[in-house]
Amino acid sequence: MDTKKIIAAFKKQGPRIETRAKVTLKEKKDFSLWYTPGVGAASLYLAKNPKEARKMSIKQNSVAIVSDGSAVLGLGNIGPYGALPVMEGKALIFKAKANVDAWPLVLDTHDPDEIVRIVKAVAPNFGGINLEDIAAPQCFEIERRLIEELDIPVMHDDQHGTAIVVLAGLINAAKVVKKDIKKLRVVISGAGAAGTAVAKLLAAAGVKDTILLDRAGAIYAGRPELNAHKSELAALTNPRKVSGGFAEVMVGADVFIGVSGKGLLKAEHVASMAPKSIVFALANPEPEILPDEAKKAGAAVIATGRSDYPNQINNSLVFPGIFRGALDKRVSKITEATKLRAARALAALVTKPTAAKIIPDMLDPRVVKAVAQAVH
Amino acid sequence: MDTKKIIAAFKKQGPRIETRAKVTLKEKKDFSLWYTPGVGAASLYLAKNPKEARKMSIKQNSVAIVSDGSAVLGLGNIGPYGALPVMEGKALIFKAKANVDAWPLVLDTHDPDEIVRIVKAVAPNFGGINLEDIAAPQCFEIERRLIEELDIPVMHDDQHGTAIVVLAGLINAAKVVKKDIKKLRVVISGAGAAGTAVAKLLAAAGVKDTILLDRAGAIYAGRPELNAHKSELAALTNPRKVSGGFAEVMVGADVFIGVSGKGLLKAEHVASMAPKSIVFALANPEPEILPDEAKKAGAAVIATGRSDYPNQINNSLVFPGIFRGALDKRVSKITEATKLRAARALAALVTKPTAAKIIPDMLDPRVVKAVAQAVH
Repeated sequence: MDTKKIIAAFKKQGPRIETRAKVTLKEKKDFSLWYTPGVGAASLYLAKNPKEARKMSIKQNSVAIVSDGSAVLGLGNIGPYGALPVMEGKALIFKAKANVDAWPLVLDTHDPDEIVRIVKAVAPNFGGINLEDIAAPQCFEIERRLIEELDIPVMHDDQHGTAIVVLAGLINAAKVVKKDIKKLRVVISGAGAAGTAVAKLLAAAGVKDTILLDRAGAIYAGRPELNAHKSELAALTNPRKVSGGFAEVMVGADVFIGVSGKGLLKAEHVASMAPKSIVFALANPEPEILPDEAKKAGAAVIATGRSDYPNQINNSLVFPGIFRGALDKRVSKITEATKLRAARALAALVTKPTAAKIIPDMLDPRVVKAVAQAVH
Repeated sequence: MDTKKIIAAFKKQGPRIETRAKVTLKEKKDFSLWYTPGVGAASLYLAKNPKEARKMSIKQNSVAIVSDGSAVLGLGNIGPYGALPVMEGKALIFKAKANVDAWPLVLDTHDPDEIVRIVKAVAPNFGGINLEDIAAPQCFEIERRLIEELDIPVMHDDQHGTAIVVLAGLINAAKVVKKDIKKLRVVISGAGAAGTAVAKLLAAAGVKDTILLDRAGAIYAGRPELNAHKSELAALTNPRKVSGGFAEVMVGADVFIGVSGKGLLKAEHVASMAPKSIVFALANPEPEILPDEAKKAGAAVIATGRSDYPNQINNSLVFPGIFRGALDKRVSKITEATKLRAARALAALVTKPTAAKIIPDMLDPRVVKAVAQAVH
């Protein structure tokens, strides 16, 4: 569908989500119970017992989808109004897939301190916080502080949703090519929110040889001018301390994971990889390489972020189930162990992985439940 | 219903509102349009044309119900969790009465600057801001700054919702006792959010002789130690510069409007009023005087805030219609003229006012439309 038709469809539709009353307000006694004077008793009770808000208010089932619009899709910093359609789309998916009552909260500020203060201030209304489309490196600090300071689960989906679904895909891709996942040589192009989280989760899953690249090439311990965030990554990855540019690093790699940009991966790079290579070209909407081209160049398993090719590696497989599980079990943190379990549960839904099927489909009704069960 | 039963009902119910998807997400093409990649076009368009958010996002029909929990019902400062059930109840009424998608935003802060910053930061998600249960005098400054600085309507309902419904009731009460509303001597007990707004709206409606009382007695120009807010009120009211306590001020008054507290108004005060007196004892849940007692002492028209007596003066008659009208007509301010029109429209729904019927019932289906039509 072309741009004009899409915008016309959004204008015709207006809001894609709405609120709905769960109790009836038809008679005076309904008002007396659910509004005044009845609500006064509930208010006094919650003032004294705030933890009970998870039982007797929207907090039981609500998630705020918070973004400052600084890194929306692959479109960059397009601000709160640019971010709003994406957050509303996520709210739609939260409800349709997992019956989570999510509400968009795009923020008209890019100041990390202010974002932290705002999210803390609105936290009483929500049972979870989904951070979204916030640029690196600010996203790391914002998420870390909110996880520390709040008693409800906080997850930056661009990081962990992506990492979980990538690990799920990689578990099955490794089976298809009959390689031990722990021994894979992995190259991750892009050291932003997604690349960072993927590298960390792969490390937690036992993958030992991962090299992350940013615009200056491979990240390794001791590289000049590394900031704190990248120094941490250098310590966690690249055990052979490989330096150099993209083409050099790709030689002999088993896996390419692209969370960077269109057209970065050329046929000759794929050809230089180890036999039975795995290519996850996840840039959206234009992947790092088109699947046909990667296949011709020798890749054995190929995935993208798009719905019009096989193996769609998309966060939508993860975030509804993660928050469904977190709300149902009233967990206060999404732990590393939960992320690993969620990836394994997602992978396990594909009982016989093939090159054309390493990850469940977004329409597969088992997905949300499997991921939710992994949360505890 | 007793407190235990109410709390049990709230616990059994859980959330009283939820979200609902307005589009279906069944096939891949639904995801492609309403989520990725389709949403990218909508995002780029809104980044360039933010005003179009009112046409193609939740902003078209959404209202934030913002409270810091500093003045919840008559319960005082009981904080954000204490406030949450009230805001959720209002969201319920917004939807049930006026199809407005309202979302509670209780805030875990009492700092007026921070409240203003937070509301401005979240404003892109909403088509209107309903401030609620914020203590005076901070509520005045917070509302004034937000009205100035935002391009969506902002209304502190405790002030203006109350003022509109009181004026509506007074218009009809004056008819019942056959007095000219502009010549009434009015005493308002309580100079907080509600009392202040009632005094101002009555002045705008041409009522010339209004006396406001706070804990120190009548407010008059030149009274020692008046703060800025009360100096402004003194300039606007009490043209006879009456000083003194409650009992003195009540002598000869035509109207008592109580937005203060239980049991303040005694039979002897009512007896000291002018003939055919009007008593609005609006403190909730316990009025300043019980209707029977006021009647025995000589009051001709009596109203309370409660649903179990005739003439319930309640904001619920006003806020759904005000925001319904504001959203539909995309107005950026709720003006004084709108408030006067809304009060008159509400009063006009009672074609033949009597002492037992000066205000429409909350269940009257004409109320929202009449109030909404007054907004322009």
